[in-house]
Amino acid sequence: MKKYEDESPNRLEGRNAVLEALRSGRSVDKLYIQSGLQDGPIQTIIREAKKHDTIVKYLPKERLNQMSDTGNHQGVVADVASFEYSSVADILDKAKEKGEPPFIILLDGIEDPHNLGAIIRTANLAGAHGVIISKHRAAGLTATAARASAGALNYTPVAKVTNMGKTVDELKKEGLWFVCADMGGTRMYNLDLKGPIGLVIGNEGDGVSRLVKEKCDFIASIPMKGDIDSLNASVAAGVLAFEIVRQRG
Amino acid sequence: MKKYEDESPNRLEGRNAVLEALRSGRSVDKLYIQSGLQDGPIQTIIREAKKHDTIVKYLPKERLNQMSDTGNHQGVVADVASFEYSSVADILDKAKEKGEPPFIILLDGIEDPHNLGAIIRTANLAGAHGVIISKHRAAGLTATAARASAGALNYTPVAKVTNMGKTVDELKKEGLWFVCADMGGTRMYNLDLKGPIGLVIGNEGDGVSRLVKEKCDFIASIPMKGDIDSLNASVAAGVLAFEIVRQRG
Repeated sequence: MKKYEDESPNRLEGRNAVLEALRSGRSVDKLYIQSGLQDGPIQTIIREAKKHDTIVKYLPKERLNQMSDTGNHQGVVADVASFEYSSVADILDKAKEKGEPPFIILLDGIEDPHNLGAIIRTANLAGAHGVIISKHRAAGLTATAARASAGALNYTPVAKVTNMGKTVDELKKEGLWFVCADMGGTRMYNLDLKGPIGLVIGNEGDGVSRLVKEKCDFIASIPMKGDIDSLNASVAAGVLAFEIVRQRG
Repeated sequence: MKKYEDESPNRLEGRNAVLEALRSGRSVDKLYIQSGLQDGPIQTIIREAKKHDTIVKYLPKERLNQMSDTGNHQGVVADVASFEYSSVADILDKAKEKGEPPFIILLDGIEDPHNLGAIIRTANLAGAHGVIISKHRAAGLTATAARASAGALNYTPVAKVTNMGKTVDELKKEGLWFVCADMGGTRMYNLDLKGPIGLVIGNEGDGVSRLVKEKCDFIASIPMKGDIDSLNASVAAGVLAFEIVRQRG
């Protein structure tokens, strides 16, 4: 379902193919339009691209001909990111396929793409079925995040949601329990983390947002012995994810 | 023993103070010498500075007077980094002070200063008594590492050694056992990690070097369930460090 290649982005050509990609929410890195074309379908494509803040470049026909594999670009070529966001349903399906109780990592506002990538990497190796990130005020699947995931993006589905609280509510209906990482909670060793579980990791500075925290069934704390406040977010995610692994093992 | 302030470096003045700082290996960021001075002691200070690749600037006397707090700079002022490397002995002393069996994290070639900083942060919160890094082919205590440590550098001593293998041998004489993180070892849950311990984390790409690995008493593996090879180095360090915390708790 997902494929990540840092070097060679996928290329789409033709009006329908590109318009569909844009409408489906697939990440289009760059849109190339033949200079001078202004007909209705082209206007529609450009309008759709602007909705998604896609970069649009106007090139002469000869240039598009060179870029085209099929020779039938109809004045429209697009470079799409070679990985795609999955849906929350995809993640649940993955757990079902494996016959395992769902284990999902939810990121409530992780801003550093290095942390995002490292957490996707951790999710893969801890056997989590997917990662859910928030659409706003959060790092997306940028090239940096993909690189930091060390290939995990090829295997671990990442879904992007508008309202994390609503997503938690929906997943509760699917039988998941939610545990969020925060200080002042129960020592993680004393919680039962074996069932279908959502692990919520908060923002690097502010932690889990109040709204999402209130929806969590447990607050899990990593036992801290030191002088400073908190672990790096991707380290905290790793320590908690592998406590879940230990309990499930 | 150590203090880190990103904004205000410490200032030393006077010939002896500066010469001693240089000789002790303290990190001098910049050395200011009064223009025109060329006497023997000044030559000695400049020679010592060059040995350490310290930046030397020549300034008029009036400028040094402005910089001086004591008014007695003798033509020599130095900005020293506000954190210092500790010695391995300092780290052992810290364990002794606390009445705890030593717990040291050794980094065998961590190159990314973000990882270094995150691991120092983890060391602090996991109650490790210090971090040992290698002098060559490894990140040092740069501003980036300090920032990534989120203040932990103020509390957790970091020693820099030339020969990690020799340091392991010396610490074995002090009663420490060594466990290194690598694939194909014993599941970390099945190892006894409670005594005086050195946890060795290897390079981001190559892992622990053969020489150091051969000296380790155990190889500890994090149980991996995924499709890719390995965790981010600072995440792996965190997971292992907190397994030690769990067993000691």
